[in-house]
Amino acid sequence: MTQTDILIIGGGPAGMVASMTCRQYYPSKRVTVVKEQEKSLVPCGIPYVFGNLLESPEDDMIPCGERSEKMGVKLYHDRIVEIDFDEKVAIGESGERYGYEKLILATGSVPREPKISNWDAEGVFFVPKDPDYILQMHARVQEMETIAVIGTGFIGVEIAGELAHKGKKVHLVGSRLLKHAFDPELSDYMEQKMLHENITFHKDRRSKEILVNEQDRAVGVAFDDGERIACDGVILATGYRANTELAKKSGLSLRQGETIYVDEYMRTTREDVFAIGDCAEKRHFLTKRTVPIMLASTATAEARVAAANLYKINLVKSFSGTIDIFSTVIGGTCFASAGITEEDAAKHRINTVSATVIGSDKHPAKLPNNHKQAVKLVAMANSGIVIGAQVIGSIDTGEMINILGVIIEKRMTVFDLLNLQVATHPLLTSGPTAYPIVQAAQNIVVGHIGS
Amino acid sequence: MTQTDILIIGGGPAGMVASMTCRQYYPSKRVTVVKEQEKSLVPCGIPYVFGNLLESPEDDMIPCGERSEKMGVKLYHDRIVEIDFDEKVAIGESGERYGYEKLILATGSVPREPKISNWDAEGVFFVPKDPDYILQMHARVQEMETIAVIGTGFIGVEIAGELAHKGKKVHLVGSRLLKHAFDPELSDYMEQKMLHENITFHKDRRSKEILVNEQDRAVGVAFDDGERIACDGVILATGYRANTELAKKSGLSLRQGETIYVDEYMRTTREDVFAIGDCAEKRHFLTKRTVPIMLASTATAEARVAAANLYKINLVKSFSGTIDIFSTVIGGTCFASAGITEEDAAKHRINTVSATVIGSDKHPAKLPNNHKQAVKLVAMANSGIVIGAQVIGSIDTGEMINILGVIIEKRMTVFDLLNLQVATHPLLTSGPTAYPIVQAAQNIVVGHIGS
Repeated sequence: MTQTDILIIGGGPAGMVASMTCRQYYPSKRVTVVKEQEKSLVPCGIPYVFGNLLESPEDDMIPCGERSEKMGVKLYHDRIVEIDFDEKVAIGESGERYGYEKLILATGSVPREPKISNWDAEGVFFVPKDPDYILQMHARVQEMETIAVIGTGFIGVEIAGELAHKGKKVHLVGSRLLKHAFDPELSDYMEQKMLHENITFHKDRRSKEILVNEQDRAVGVAFDDGERIACDGVILATGYRANTELAKKSGLSLRQGETIYVDEYMRTTREDVFAIGDCAEKRHFLTKRTVPIMLASTATAEARVAAANLYKINLVKSFSGTIDIFSTVIGGTCFASAGITEEDAAKHRINTVSATVIGSDKHPAKLPNNHKQAVKLVAMANSGIVIGAQVIGSIDTGEMINILGVIIEKRMTVFDLLNLQVATHPLLTSGPTAYPIVQAAQNIVVGHIGS
Repeated sequence: MTQTDILIIGGGPAGMVASMTCRQYYPSKRVTVVKEQEKSLVPCGIPYVFGNLLESPEDDMIPCGERSEKMGVKLYHDRIVEIDFDEKVAIGESGERYGYEKLILATGSVPREPKISNWDAEGVFFVPKDPDYILQMHARVQEMETIAVIGTGFIGVEIAGELAHKGKKVHLVGSRLLKHAFDPELSDYMEQKMLHENITFHKDRRSKEILVNEQDRAVGVAFDDGERIACDGVILATGYRANTELAKKSGLSLRQGETIYVDEYMRTTREDVFAIGDCAEKRHFLTKRTVPIMLASTATAEARVAAANLYKINLVKSFSGTIDIFSTVIGGTCFASAGITEEDAAKHRINTVSATVIGSDKHPAKLPNNHKQAVKLVAMANSGIVIGAQVIGSIDTGEMINILGVIIEKRMTVFDLLNLQVATHPLLTSGPTAYPIVQAAQNIVVGHIGS
């Protein structure tokens, strides 16, 4: 029996941040993390191990355990197979029993089983956050010439892009690119940027079956329109689901059978049991519906909320739901999104107005390395509250979306943005007379103000 | 007599944005701008015309007039010498009389006369936002080998850096670098980054006199400690003052005799007369004192407020004072600041706590082009409200400070930041487990939360 004060199951970003934060807040408490793998991958870095940026999956591994062990966190490599909430003990596959005072579930997510036949054939891969799997998959994919990537969410699009740059022939199959995060005109632009001689985009085609040879090895994909393509392997990037087997088996309440129910303090329905990250329920900041949005940044925010509230309520979660804030790089161009798209807003019958402004990320335009920068703002038609933003540009797009994240989070209006105080500098940003976030707000406001 | 509806005096960023915004809001109104120069310089770009980035001052000129003329703004090149507020007419040096319904003063700022003898000698330059002056100055400076730059605010530091990179020998004279925007430890780091074989930094030395030869041409600088240096020319970057001669002469109320008094809607004490930008009073968001902070981004925000409220009150200024938000590049490293420094806070007897976190701007660290990124947060000790932030890093620092600007503007606390939702991406930002804004907040909070 291993007795601890705070037990964390799962060693992804949520689990590791929770462990370190607990050590900071409660230096006298023993903090233990049980995780399955010895190593960890940076989850959002996985697509980039297939390209030229990182030499191998080893380069994407993080010494997260190292950092937390330095802070006094105990790490065990084991798989918890059962939890007895009454006895306050978790039982490992190894036979070890871990007794706890407070328990945090951070079991993450796993690839969703796709609706396609033969997905279990040889040469078909998922993209789990499992270092050993990714290492083997990487070695195998290296040997292939033509690869079908099924799924046009961010993992599918990023992997397809990386493989193409590495010289592989890629068939990308799915709906318009990143449709949950971007409106159609931005997906179109993304498609142009992604165009690469090595990529064939089978847009709006549905994959029905993975074709296999006699050795049950993937050799192609059949679409539901009857067409077929040949390939040496298939990567299924068709989404993730919360990893809740353990929670379910141990009797925790799940929301719609999918994610662990949690309140504002990340407490589950069981006393002294918290859940954070991909396995915990996420509600949308605006629609208030349960949504399958899984982001490491949200997971770490939840980890900090749970850690703060483990023993006493100390920290009210100041976000009212996930704002689905997200950035990526496609064909050398950065795309970022936060909040709701205009298309999704329409589906939810939200009355919106929007404006898109194209500017540049330096000023004057004659400065070297000047890039175009586009900002789309989506606001509620009556109140002018900003509920969505999409940005295209160069590297600073990554932080620009975080300005918009705070704006959305704090329910700021387009009127507030008209007199937003921003720093501008020739080498770093667009000019003060044309700062695109402000200009987009201005374009929405015109018509509301006037004599 | 030229009759117009909306007359704007001054064609800098504030005046031009006001003119275009007025045309957007009031398409039936005639909008006229009277400015002295035919051309405009991007003000914050001026230091960079002395280096290798821009080939000549011409590259820093903006077609601002072009953009507004396309929107139907009438431009006149003239200098207004008097305003008759009762008759509602402004009189130009040319003899032309401009009648108006609403008047916006955007007369900007001019270099402050320094407390040093012989500042009017040959070979001594100020840094006004005057294209003709800068063109001539640029030509003259090109011929010089050794130049003394007096003043270590952003213009002085940027020009000194650019000249050194261009191969000039530079004597930089002043207090610690950018002391109003950065705490001492950041100034020290900046100094290291700025160190260049071509720069001699005369730190904390006061210049007493510019030494001149028989032709009354600058040949050196004498310090008040008796030492002297030889140089071919002197650049005085010793600050700016509001350009309010016209306002004063015409009888407008000035605050402490320096800036034009304005209320929250940018109205002066005279009916139908507004003032915006550097010539208008600025109050500090926290100390509430009048401060000599002059930023193009604040000026354009004020332009939008004035334009919206010209005929009816439409837009409450949502900022409670200037947050002095600012970014620059020194020796290839970006430095940015918003709000108040710890040093200034102490002077104003504000009880603060602070934390500095050093992270990296990509993750994992093995990614190419990974840079260090440091964030310092200053918060009020009791409430935890964030009142200041300083960032050092690479190009995305420029937008990162704007996240912090919104955080300060919206009076967010370090507790709010613990669960800030941010987008993170391997190629664009630090990792979600170590995002430096959140981590700095966390380090401030530790000790407040615990069992």
